[in-house]
Amino acid sequence: MRGVALTDAERINWLRLARTEAVGPVTFAHLIAQFGSADRALEALPDLARRGGRDGTPKIFGGAEAEAELVAGSRLGARMIGSGEPDFPRLLSALDAPPPLLWALGDAGLMARRTVSIVGTRECSAAGQRIARALAGALGEAGYVVVSGMARGIDAAAHWGAIDSGTIAVLAGGVDNVWPPQNASLYERIGQSGCIVSSRPPGFEPRAKDFPRRNAIISGLSLGVVIVEAEMRSGSLITARLAADQGREVFAVPGSPLDPRSRGTNDLIRQGATLVEDADDVLRVLNAQPGVAAPDVPTFEPAELDEEGLAGLSGVIASLLSAAPTSFDDLARLSGAPTSAVLACLT
Amino acid sequence: MRGVALTDAERINWLRLARTEAVGPVTFAHLIAQFGSADRALEALPDLARRGGRDGTPKIFGGAEAEAELVAGSRLGARMIGSGEPDFPRLLSALDAPPPLLWALGDAGLMARRTVSIVGTRECSAAGQRIARALAGALGEAGYVVVSGMARGIDAAAHWGAIDSGTIAVLAGGVDNVWPPQNASLYERIGQSGCIVSSRPPGFEPRAKDFPRRNAIISGLSLGVVIVEAEMRSGSLITARLAADQGREVFAVPGSPLDPRSRGTNDLIRQGATLVEDADDVLRVLNAQPGVAAPDVPTFEPAELDEEGLAGLSGVIASLLSAAPTSFDDLARLSGAPTSAVLACLT
Repeated sequence: MRGVALTDAERINWLRLARTEAVGPVTFAHLIAQFGSADRALEALPDLARRGGRDGTPKIFGGAEAEAELVAGSRLGARMIGSGEPDFPRLLSALDAPPPLLWALGDAGLMARRTVSIVGTRECSAAGQRIARALAGALGEAGYVVVSGMARGIDAAAHWGAIDSGTIAVLAGGVDNVWPPQNASLYERIGQSGCIVSSRPPGFEPRAKDFPRRNAIISGLSLGVVIVEAEMRSGSLITARLAADQGREVFAVPGSPLDPRSRGTNDLIRQGATLVEDADDVLRVLNAQPGVAAPDVPTFEPAELDEEGLAGLSGVIASLLSAAPTSFDDLARLSGAPTSAVLACLT
Repeated sequence: MRGVALTDAERINWLRLARTEAVGPVTFAHLIAQFGSADRALEALPDLARRGGRDGTPKIFGGAEAEAELVAGSRLGARMIGSGEPDFPRLLSALDAPPPLLWALGDAGLMARRTVSIVGTRECSAAGQRIARALAGALGEAGYVVVSGMARGIDAAAHWGAIDSGTIAVLAGGVDNVWPPQNASLYERIGQSGCIVSSRPPGFEPRAKDFPRRNAIISGLSLGVVIVEAEMRSGSLITARLAADQGREVFAVPGSPLDPRSRGTNDLIRQGATLVEDADDVLRVLNAQPGVAAPDVPTFEPAELDEEGLAGLSGVIASLLSAAPTSFDDLARLSGAPTSAVLACLT
């Protein structure tokens, strides 16, 4: 899906399909792969849903609302980049089901450079902050762009450490969602010299359930993820798991067994994450990687489907669109995508 | 060499051969394996040295001195256990070249139980001390005897943690060498309910170069070694390396990269040591082990050597006895023992 810039009209339809309720990244990727464009997918949706036995017509996101989102974004100075466009980050494209689009405020070109994320707990120690900042600074000097989630604690320290070399903040809300308030000056600095990224519309206020999808973008944008401090069952560990599922390197900074903020990172090391004391531990692994290749460019010509093929596809799409609770495994089986990807997209 | 108690006369000769200058554990093991007893080895030594081209006769440790050592030891209430005797610890017997003898003060039966060592830096943190003590206590409760080196810092904390469940102190000096002074009460408690062990004669004052051999006994006595805190290039890392060479498990407690006392343990984890946060991390690995089997009992019948065989052997023995500096690799090649064992014995 790389290499084709959207026209204004296509961009509106891309956004309509992406924002249609219950069209997650997995469904979106299926539809685009099948129909070659958002326009054709939107046209086909009602028929597909009907053939799949779904009652009623799926409620499709309106053209006016899509236009309003584009206007709101451009007023902020942000750009919408569809997953099929040339500037969409290659590392994200390599995922089974990349987010259908990103909003980017600031220097979107940073996403094309070699990237590493540094994340960790909000309730971090002073030592953890020092480590995150020093790691980010040294990785920045080594040419890496540092990605994080602009939370307070480790995330903020990592952004500050890389503020001069280049940093990307991935937000769970819209690109104008400045949170927490004490990060206002950080947000401003990243907007000036770095890049603020979100898959959500401007103005979007994140709920707790929106953070895992944000975390999947942090890891998906990066060659590797460094976890600096994390309690057990923390969001940072979800990011680490997503990174591993996405085939990205996982790094963890060890700590004393007496410090609960190190339980998560120590456990990651126990499970095979690379132990990190300084940037060299990260660079040794990442510099040995050629980077993540862009996926093969699929044809934009829709496949010729016979009746049988169309019936099969409509079943898949209808299931994916269904509002009824469906287990992740069922979705994965139906969609043919790995469970991990389905999880990443739907949770 | 197991299973045969020494007579009083044999014990004196065993001690004479072991204490003969330049007869290290490697040479000792070769001689006993070849001649079946210390008596016959002592008899053969001058001829072997001459055939090997060595000038003069090797200076053999005197019978009177040997008797004096036995008297000194028994006055302390200690026992000499030869490496061929039934009570010699099986885990030590399994080494390529076990120490020819141990002096044991206290409950020598502890060495026959399942054992784990806990060692670390003298200049430890309060947290490190807490961890060592808690680990020792929990491993003791799980039925393990805790071995350490009775140094201040981590070693002392480990002994105290296991003082009620059973602990073995391996000294670089004689079993009466109480050091440092602040460990006097610890020494007394271990002498009462634990076991104090040394391969050196009573009254021996250790020099710096004697500690690696002591460390090899700590690891050799144990199914695994836990390193709690260690700077880079510290004695505890030597113990860890020796343990790995001896095929024993290596465990390390992680710590903050900002703490130099964790550089050594973090590096061990990077090299594959098992990360330890609590006793369960150790027990998961050690409980899965059946223990170290006793080595095959070699025949105590000396092999019939023809002239050629005898000439070859005398060359080996003469080289091993040589006072001239010889590289470890040469020794290993000559003796047929792995370099690691030669290193462990000679350093």
